[in-house]
Amino acid sequence: MGYQFQKMQEEKVFKDPVHRYVHVRDQLIWDLIKTKEFQRLRRIKQLGTLYLSFHTAEHSRFNHSLGVYEIVRRMIDEIFVGREHWHNEHRPLALCAALLHDLGHGPFSHCFEKIFNTDHELYTQQIILGDTEVNHVLSRVSPEFPKEVAAVINKTHHNKLVISMISSQIDADRMDYLQRDAFYTGVSYGSFDMERILRLMRPTKDEVVIKESGMHAVEDYLMSRYQMYWQVYFHPVSRGGEVLLNRVLKRAKVLYETGYAFKEPPKYLVPFFKSNQVSVDAYLRLDEMVLNYYLQEWIDEDDSILSDLSRRFVNRDLFKHLPFDGNRFTIDELTELFTKAGIDPDYYFVVDSFSDLPYDYNRPGINSRKPIHLITSTGKIKEISTQSVIINSITGIQRKDYKIYYPKETILNIEDLEIRGAIINVLNELE
Amino acid sequence: MGYQFQKMQEEKVFKDPVHRYVHVRDQLIWDLIKTKEFQRLRRIKQLGTLYLSFHTAEHSRFNHSLGVYEIVRRMIDEIFVGREHWHNEHRPLALCAALLHDLGHGPFSHCFEKIFNTDHELYTQQIILGDTEVNHVLSRVSPEFPKEVAAVINKTHHNKLVISMISSQIDADRMDYLQRDAFYTGVSYGSFDMERILRLMRPTKDEVVIKESGMHAVEDYLMSRYQMYWQVYFHPVSRGGEVLLNRVLKRAKVLYETGYAFKEPPKYLVPFFKSNQVSVDAYLRLDEMVLNYYLQEWIDEDDSILSDLSRRFVNRDLFKHLPFDGNRFTIDELTELFTKAGIDPDYYFVVDSFSDLPYDYNRPGINSRKPIHLITSTGKIKEISTQSVIINSITGIQRKDYKIYYPKETILNIEDLEIRGAIINVLNELE
Amino acid sequence: MGYQFQKMQEEKVFKDPVHRYVHVRDQLIWDLIKTKEFQRLRRIKQLGTLYLSFHTAEHSRFNHSLGVYEIVRRMIDEIFVGREHWHNEHRPLALCAALLHDLGHGPFSHCFEKIFNTDHELYTQQIILGDTEVNHVLSRVSPEFPKEVAAVINKTHHNKLVISMISSQIDADRMDYLQRDAFYTGVSYGSFDMERILRLMRPTKDEVVIKESGMHAVEDYLMSRYQMYWQVYFHPVSRGGEVLLNRVLKRAKVLYETGYAFKEPPKYLVPFFKSNQVSVDAYLRLDEMVLNYYLQEWIDEDDSILSDLSRRFVNRDLFKHLPFDGNRFTIDELTELFTKAGIDPDYYFVVDSFSDLPYDYNRPGINSRKPIHLITSTGKIKEISTQSVIINSITGIQRKDYKIYYPKETILNIEDLEIRGAIINVLNELE
Amino acid sequence: MGYQFQKMQEEKVFKDPVHRYVHVRDQLIWDLIKTKEFQRLRRIKQLGTLYLSFHTAEHSRFNHSLGVYEIVRRMIDEIFVGREHWHNEHRPLALCAALLHDLGHGPFSHCFEKIFNTDHELYTQQIILGDTEVNHVLSRVSPEFPKEVAAVINKTHHNKLVISMISSQIDADRMDYLQRDAFYTGVSYGSFDMERILRLMRPTKDEVVIKESGMHAVEDYLMSRYQMYWQVYFHPVSRGGEVLLNRVLKRAKVLYETGYAFKEPPKYLVPFFKSNQVSVDAYLRLDEMVLNYYLQEWIDEDDSILSDLSRRFVNRDLFKHLPFDGNRFTIDELTELFTKAGIDPDYYFVVDSFSDLPYDYNRPGINSRKPIHLITSTGKIKEISTQSVIINSITGIQRKDYKIYYPKETILNIEDLEIRGAIINVLNELE
Repeated sequence: MGYQFQKMQEEKVFKDPVHRYVHVRDQLIWDLIKTKEFQRLRRIKQLGTLYLSFHTAEHSRFNHSLGVYEIVRRMIDEIFVGREHWHNEHRPLALCAALLHDLGHGPFSHCFEKIFNTDHELYTQQIILGDTEVNHVLSRVSPEFPKEVAAVINKTHHNKLVISMISSQIDADRMDYLQRDAFYTGVSYGSFDMERILRLMRPTKDEVVIKESGMHAVEDYLMSRYQMYWQVYFHPVSRGGEVLLNRVLKRAKVLYETGYAFKEPPKYLVPFFKSNQVSVDAYLRLDEMVLNYYLQEWIDEDDSILSDLSRRFVNRDLFKHLPFDGNRFTIDELTELFTKAGIDPDYYFVVDSFSDLPYDYNRPGINSRKPIHLITSTGKIKEISTQSVIINSITGIQRKDYKIYYPKETILNIEDLEIRGAIINVLNELE
Repeated sequence: MGYQFQKMQEEKVFKDPVHRYVHVRDQLIWDLIKTKEFQRLRRIKQLGTLYLSFHTAEHSRFNHSLGVYEIVRRMIDEIFVGREHWHNEHRPLALCAALLHDLGHGPFSHCFEKIFNTDHELYTQQIILGDTEVNHVLSRVSPEFPKEVAAVINKTHHNKLVISMISSQIDADRMDYLQRDAFYTGVSYGSFDMERILRLMRPTKDEVVIKESGMHAVEDYLMSRYQMYWQVYFHPVSRGGEVLLNRVLKRAKVLYETGYAFKEPPKYLVPFFKSNQVSVDAYLRLDEMVLNYYLQEWIDEDDSILSDLSRRFVNRDLFKHLPFDGNRFTIDELTELFTKAGIDPDYYFVVDSFSDLPYDYNRPGINSRKPIHLITSTGKIKEISTQSVIINSITGIQRKDYKIYYPKETILNIEDLEIRGAIINVLNELE
Repeated sequence: MGYQFQKMQEEKVFKDPVHRYVHVRDQLIWDLIKTKEFQRLRRIKQLGTLYLSFHTAEHSRFNHSLGVYEIVRRMIDEIFVGREHWHNEHRPLALCAALLHDLGHGPFSHCFEKIFNTDHELYTQQIILGDTEVNHVLSRVSPEFPKEVAAVINKTHHNKLVISMISSQIDADRMDYLQRDAFYTGVSYGSFDMERILRLMRPTKDEVVIKESGMHAVEDYLMSRYQMYWQVYFHPVSRGGEVLLNRVLKRAKVLYETGYAFKEPPKYLVPFFKSNQVSVDAYLRLDEMVLNYYLQEWIDEDDSILSDLSRRFVNRDLFKHLPFDGNRFTIDELTELFTKAGIDPDYYFVVDSFSDLPYDYNRPGINSRKPIHLITSTGKIKEISTQSVIINSITGIQRKDYKIYYPKETILNIEDLEIRGAIINVLNELE
Repeated sequence: MGYQFQKMQEEKVFKDPVHRYVHVRDQLIWDLIKTKEFQRLRRIKQLGTLYLSFHTAEHSRFNHSLGVYEIVRRMIDEIFVGREHWHNEHRPLALCAALLHDLGHGPFSHCFEKIFNTDHELYTQQIILGDTEVNHVLSRVSPEFPKEVAAVINKTHHNKLVISMISSQIDADRMDYLQRDAFYTGVSYGSFDMERILRLMRPTKDEVVIKESGMHAVEDYLMSRYQMYWQVYFHPVSRGGEVLLNRVLKRAKVLYETGYAFKEPPKYLVPFFKSNQVSVDAYLRLDEMVLNYYLQEWIDEDDSILSDLSRRFVNRDLFKHLPFDGNRFTIDELTELFTKAGIDPDYYFVVDSFSDLPYDYNRPGINSRKPIHLITSTGKIKEISTQSVIINSITGIQRKDYKIYYPKETILNIEDLEIRGAIINVLNELE
C-alpha cells in the first residue's frame, strides 16, 4: 500500500478547544506536521495585529491549519466516503492541501504583503515545490504529488471538487477561522451550526453542494461571517494596529532605500527591502518573533519617525481613529495642515478604507465568485440566493467604510496655535 | 419605606442555565413567585407541543418568566439606574410586569386559544385584577398598583419606557425566549450577544434605545430571531404537533356541542366548551397536566375520531406533512377525495399557513410595529434600518409558508383503489 | 439480513443539547422509540420532584433514555467495533437494553416506590416481557430476544460485558445522567471528559475496562458524581420536595385503606392502594400527568391533612429543614410535643436520612460493587483505587446525613404558648 | 478626590472569553495597563513551553493578568463592599497588586529562572519600585504607594486580607489561571463554580474565608486544580518542552562562560550569563520574542550541541520520555553508557522530577501553607479539611513523579552495537 494511505499504529490526537480533538492517523499527515516549515506557523499569529484590539486573539496559524485539516478529514471520512462523485484516492490530496494552505504566510501577513509586494499564496506553492522538508515528505507519495497539492492551493487543479472543499464561499478554511477567531476573541458572532452544514454537504462532480434542508444553516453561516468582518476584523481599533505597523515597515523600507545606517541591520528583512522575489529560504527565516525583535530594536534607532512608530506599536500606543466619508478635499486639507505643523503626513495621517461583500454569485463583468449551490431531494441544483429571502437581500451588496487615523497627543501638542486650531476644527467636523 | 422597596435580609438565587443565576432581593418579587398563580406556570410548557419535534424542549413558562424578570432587573440595576430618563420608583412596576407577563397562558397556549377563543393577555390582566393571591400581593404596594401592572402588560400605561422594556421588537421577553428556547432545543441559532445589547441600552422618555455602536449586535439578534422562527418554531414537525392537538380539541368541542356523552366528562374543560368568558378561577384550574389527563382518557372514548386523534397526540403518531403552494384548487380536490374515501377532511386534512416578518417599522396602513431606534453619541435618534444594510434589506419582507398534513397510513389503507390512486397522485405532485 | 441489523434508508437524528445529536439508523431502535410505552417516558420527569429546588430541571426520562442509547451506540460504533472481545452481533442487545433500561419508572419514581412497594426495574422487565408494543417489536428479532434484553437489565444475562456497559460504576447510564442533570440544573459540577473516557474504554471478556492513561479522567468523573449527589440530588430543598410528596401519598393510601370516601376516586391509583402487584396495563396508565391531576383534585378534599399537604406540594409551600445529628431522643421529644400541639407527627414531622458511597470495590461482607478496572499497555488489569491516590483516599468512605422537616408557620401558630416555646427551643438547638 | 479613586468618564471593557468582559473604570488601572512594562507581558506566554504539548495554549501573561484583576474587582465591588472588615480605601491597593502580580516574569519563566537564578517575584517588586512607567503611575497615588503594592506581592504587607485575595490556596490568581489554562488547552478539568465561590467569599480581619455552604464548591475547585496539575502542567510532553529548553540555555551559558565565540553574541542574554543581578532595564529587555530570536540564530552556531538542541526546540523535535522510579543506580548506569557512546549526558539524558500537594494546612515543621477556612452562619471559623471528607482524605498527601528524557533516534543510531544494546536494555526495563 502506498505511503499516502499508510496508517500509524496508534492514532495521534491534538486537543483542540474548537473541534474538541484533531485526529491524525495518516503517516503522511503526521510527517508533514513535524516539518520545520509547518512548525514555523506556530510563530505566525492567525490574526496578525488584531491582538492589539482583541487582546486574547493570540492564536497561531499552526492552530488554525490543524483545524482546517480536521474539518476536511471529517467531511471525507464522515460524509463523503462511499457516496457518488467522491473517490477516496483523492483523500490524501485534499488533506494535504487543507493542512498546508497557509504555509506561505509571512509575519503579520496582509500588512507585510502590502509593503513588500509578496504574495503568501505564491510562497505556499514555492515552499511546497522547493527544496524543503515539506516537499520531501510530499514527494514520497510520488514525484508529481507536490505539484498536485500546489495546484489545489493555486485553484488550477483539474479536480474542482477538492478545490471547493478548501476554497469557496463555504469551505473548511472559512468554517474553521470564523469559529476559531470567535472562540479566541470571546465574541459570540462566529457561531453557526457547522455540524449540520457538514452533515448536509454532498460531493458533486465539480463542487461541494449543500442539501436544500441546510439552507437556513447556510444563512446563519453567512451572517456569522458578515458579523465577524464588521465586528472583529474591521473593528476600527483592529485596523488601527495594522495601520501603525504598515507605517513602521514603510519607514524602515524608505530608510533602507535612502541609505540610512541602522545600528544593527535587520538582516532577515534586508532581502525584502531589496526585492519582492526573496528566496524560499530567506522567506521562511522571517517570522513574527524575528520581526518583533527588530521592532523592539528600532525603538533605539536615531530616526525619530522609525523610533516613535516602533515604540507606538510595541507598547500599543495607537493612533486615534475617526469616521470619515472619503472626501478628497478633507484629505488634502489635513495633509497640508499636518505638513505645515511639521508632522509628516506620510506616517502620521492615514486614510484606511475597507469593504466587504457578504455573498455574491458569479456575474460576468461584476463578480467571479463561485456561488453556493443547494441540491434538492430530486437532485436539482439551485443557487442559494434564489431560494433564501435573506441571502437574496444581501447578495451583491458591497459595504465600504473609511476611517482616518492620526496621533491625538501630537496634534494637541502643536505649538502653533493657529495650525493646531485649524486641524482640530477639521477633525471635530468628522466626529 | 414602602413594601415595594423592601429588601429581604438575604438575597435568594435561582440557578439558571441561561443566565447563570436569577437574583431576587425584593420581598415583593419573592412574594409573587410564591403565589399559586405563578407556581401554576410550572405546569405550562413554554413551547407547548414543540417537544414533539424537539424532544428536549420541556421547559415551562415558570422557567422563562423568571428569566424575563432577571433581564429587566439587570437592565435597571446595571444599566439604567442613575441615568437621565430613568426614575427608580418605576422599578417595582417594571419588575412585576416582567415577572407576570405570561401569567394568563393556558395549556398549549396558541393552539388552545384558537379553538376556544380565549386571549392569554386578557387573562393575564384578569388574574392580576381578580381575587387572586397575585392581586393580594400587588395590592400591598397600593390599591392602584395591580391596575398599573395590568396596564403595562396591556400596553396602555402612560409610561411607554417601561412598556418597551417588556414589549417591543427587542425586549426582555424576546431576548429571554430566544436564548432559552435555543438552549433547551440544543440548536445554535438563538445565540446573540445579549451582554453587549444590555450594556448599550439607554432609557429615553418614551422607549429603550440602543447606542449606535450596538447596531451589529442588534443585526445579529434579529437574525437569531429569524432563524429560530424558521428552524424551530415553524419547523414542519413542530407545526404538526400543534395541527394534531388543534383537531383533537376541535373534535371534543364539536362532540360536546352535539350532546355526545363522554364516559367521564372533562369537567375543567366544560366551561370552555360553553363559553369563551370563563371565570378566572375556572381558567386557572386548567393546565397541561389536566388537559393531558383528558387526552389520555379520550383514547378510550367511543367516538373513533376523538379516540384516534387523542391516541396520535399522546403517543406521537403525527400526520405526514408536504410542502404546499396554497393553491385553492388542490385543497378542494383533496377535500372531495378524502370525503369520498370516508376520511373526514375536517379532522384528517389540514392546511397550515404561517408567516413571519423579521423586522419592520411603523408604516401607516401597513404595519404599526414600533421600530428599533439607535442613539448616536450626540443624542440623535435613528431608525435602525436606515443605518444597517442588512436590516434594511429584510425590513418589511414578509415570508409566508404553507404545509398540508394528513395521515399517511390511513391513505395507504383506503380500499377503493381508484380513490386511493387519485389522492396519491395529487399528493405526489406536491412532493 | 435479520430485522435486528436492518438499517433505515435515511438516518434519523434527534437534536440533543448534551450530545449534540442522537443518531438512529437501526429500524429496530426507531420502532422501539415509536411505541407507546417508550413515548410514555415523556410524561415522567428524570428528576422527579427535584424541579421544586432546581426549577429548570424539567427534563423527562425519554430525554435521558435517548442519551444513554447514544452513548452505548458510540461506545460500540466508534470504539469497540473490530476489537478483540467485542462481537458485533451483541450490538442490538446492548442498544435495546440501553434504550429501555428506565422503561418501568413510575411517576416520581423513588418516592412512589417507597409508598407503594413497587420496583421499577421489575416493571421494566415485565413491560418488556408482557403484551406490549415494545415486546412486539423486540419479538420480531426472535422469540427469545425480549428475555435477553430483560436479562441484561436484570443483570443476570451471561454476557457480563454488555451488562457492564449499562450498569456498573462507570456506565452509559451514569455518564448520561450526570451530564444531563448538570446541564438542566445549570450547575457546573457534572462536567467530566466523557470523550476521553469513551476513547479509552476497552471491551474485555467480562466487562468494560479503561486504559491506564484514562485514570485522571475517571478520578474527575467520580468527583463529578460525588458533587452531583451532595450538591444537587441530596440538596436539602431537593429532599424537601420528596419528603412532602411522600407524606401526601402516604395520607391518600391510609385514607383509602380506612374507607375514606374520595370526592372523585383516583381510579388509576386505586390498583396501587390495593396491591403492590398491579398489572402492566394498570402500571403504565399512571404517569406524572395523571398523578398531578389527582394531587390538584385533593386540594379540594375534606380531609384537612390530605388537602393541606397536596396544596403544599402543588403550590410549592415546602416544609422548613434543619440539620440533625440523628439523635433518637430529639425525635421522640419532638414527636411527643407535636402530638400535644395537635399536629400529626406522622405527616408533619419527618426525619430524612441519606448517604452516599462515592466508590468502592467488592469486599466480601461489606460491599459487592463491581470495581472500576484499568488496563495497562501490556494488558494487566488493575483495580483503580490501587493506582489513584485520590480514589484510594475516598474508597469505601460512606457519608451519611440527616435532616428534619416540619411546617414552620404551623409551629409559629400553635396557640398553647408553652408547647410552642418548647418546640422552638428544641428546634433552635438544632439550628 | 485622590487619583486612586478617580473614575474615567466612560468605562473601558476588554472582551475576555473566560470572564466575558474585563471592566476598567479606574483611571489608575487604565494608566497601568498602558505602561510599557505591562504591555511587555503580551510577549510572555502564560504557560511557557506548554504550547509544545497543548498546541492551543498560546495565551500571554497579559491575558491572565487582566483576568486576575477582574476577579479581584468583582470580589470587592460585588461581594465585599459594605461588609464588615472590608475598607474600601484598600481597593486601589488590591486592584494594583492583582494586575501587577506577574509583572516580573521573564521568558519561559520557571525554566529560565532555574538556569539563571533569577526570581520573578523579586523582579516584580523591583519593577514596581524602580524607575519605570509603572512606578511613575503608582507614585501619583502617593510616594509610599509603590512600596505598599510591592509589599502585598511580597506577602509582607500588614493587610493580610488583601494579601489573601491575591495569594492563598484559593485566590484570584489560581481561580483565573485554572479556568483560563483549561479554556485555552481545551481540557475540561479546569472548570469549577467560581461564581458560587465568589458569592460565598467573606472578608475577615486577616483573610478571605468562605461560607460553610460553599464547601462543596471548594472541594470541586481543589479537584480541578489537582487535575490541571497532573493532566496539563505535569503532562510528560509538557515537561519535555521545558526539559529541552533548560538544556539549550544551560549549554549557551556554559559556552559563554568558557569563552565560546558566538557568531552574533546574544546581547540581551549576556547580562544574565554574567550575573543573576541584572538591572531592571536589562531584565525588561528580554522577552520571548527576543529569546526565540536567539534560539533560531543558534541553530546556525558551530557548537553541535547548542545547534542541535536549539533546532530540536524550535522545530519541536522533543526527547522521548519514559516512566522512572527514581533509582539512583539506573541513572548512574545510563550516564556511563551515554558517555561511552559519545553522547553528552549533561545535555542528552535528563531525569525530571515533580510533585504536587493538592491541599494542606500549616503544620509546624511540615508545611506552612495558609489553610482554607470556612465560616459558619454563627461566625465560627473552621479549617476546611475538618469539614470535608474528600478534602480531609487528600490533605497533606504529596504525589511525586519522575520521568527520564533522551533522544530516541540518537540512541538508535549509536554505531557501537554493544553499547547501543546495553542502553536499549536498560530503557526497555523502564518501559
